[in-house]
Amino acid sequence: MEISARNGLKGKVEDIKLGEVMASIKIAVDEPGIITAIITRESAEELGLAEGDEVKAVIKSTEIMVAK
Amino acid sequence: MEISARNGLKGKVEDIKLGEVMASIKIAVDEPGIITAIITRESAEELGLAEGDEVKAVIKSTEIMVAK
Amino acid sequence: MEISARNGLKGKVEDIKLGEVMASIKIAVDEPGIITAIITRESAEELGLAEGDEVKAVIKSTEIMVAK
Amino acid sequence: MEISARNGLKGKVEDIKLGEVMASIKIAVDEPGIITAIITRESAEELGLAEGDEVKAVIKSTEIMVAK
Amino acid sequence: MEISARNGLKGKVEDIKLGEVMASIKIAVDEPGIITAIITRESAEELGLAEGDEVKAVIKSTEIMVAK
Amino acid sequence: MEISARNGLKGKVEDIKLGEVMASIKIAVDEPGIITAIITRESAEELGLAEGDEVKAVIKSTEIMVAK
Repeated sequence: MEISARNGLKGKVEDIKLGEVMASIKIAVDEPGIITAIITRESAEELGLAEGDEVKAVIKSTEIMVAK
Repeated sequence: MEISARNGLKGKVEDIKLGEVMASIKIAVDEPGIITAIITRESAEELGLAEGDEVKAVIKSTEIMVAK
Repeated sequence: MEISARNGLKGKVEDIKLGEVMASIKIAVDEPGIITAIITRESAEELGLAEGDEVKAVIKSTEIMVAK
Repeated sequence: MEISARNGLKGKVEDIKLGEVMASIKIAVDEPGIITAIITRESAEELGLAEGDEVKAVIKSTEIMVAK
Repeated sequence: MEISARNGLKGKVEDIKLGEVMASIKIAVDEPGIITAIITRESAEELGLAEGDEVKAVIKSTEIMVAK
Repeated sequence: MEISARNGLKGKVEDIKLGEVMASIKIAVDEPGIITAIITRESAEELGLAEGDEVKAVIKSTEIMVAK
């Protein structure tokens, strides 16, 4: 089975912290990968994004899933 | 100004595709980084996650922001 | 008042687990319903999605709201 | 490979609409399933949620992935 | 029917832009309101958040729903 | 550094509640601001959204970040 979420970054679990309901998993990512970000066209234009730009992919931790 | 979203992966813009409202930005990530994933404790236990495990951080592309 | 989030699946609360800040609510869904998923066109094409395909709608639990 | 996102509802693709960047996939869900929603404890208490309550799981369509 | 998403900011639609699949709705918010943000405890501590701090609630536009 | 998430509402921290893994931050927003919501075109049309409409921007608290 294949999933539509194409962003998959390989790494190693570094730390696990368990709460009562939630858990925090720290993953060390050390292989190169491609990330696709969907933002508004307006943001892309206001940031003046162009191929070759040095950028940062920023992600809220509640949006990250773990596959094993 | 600093933001609570701590996941920031450095990379280079590889491709930009503009729609009328949305835009797709492909970013090549090639520096190691740490990702924090918040999942349910139940998932962490059912996956049997442990330090050292080889895993994949999976992210839907609509959840990724770009900082420049 | 009507909300733009059109995905609403009827069900019955099966289990509630309270943490200090978060809560986990298990809902048994047993009525048929229609779900709209917004994914990238690229994913749709790479999955080769076509009408009639048997698929699974996958959702991270932090993205689900409860209306009562 | 198994993913931490445990909510998986089986269904059949009913309709596909392609934009330039995004795609809308309508899925008819007709099998019973269990959905786990993570909300704040405060919301759970203010809604007065209890086992047996008839509720609706509400989901923004941009949060739904498709697995095939 | 009441929804668990408690963040509701009143405003007036200023602009609507329609794509083929998605739409962008600009809303002018001019009434005071309370926003609840759920972040990791780690982020809260690293930002040194304290009552009275001047902050900014930052939200990706794909996460905002419209109720009318 | 500038981020693609353009929705930034200024406010003051009113309350902080710490769990083991997550934290809840209440922010009092009292300055006018513009919010951009990305919803499906279908939802926009079914809600009959038009400029000047009184609406509510609804946001799940797990989607809100804090910048300081």
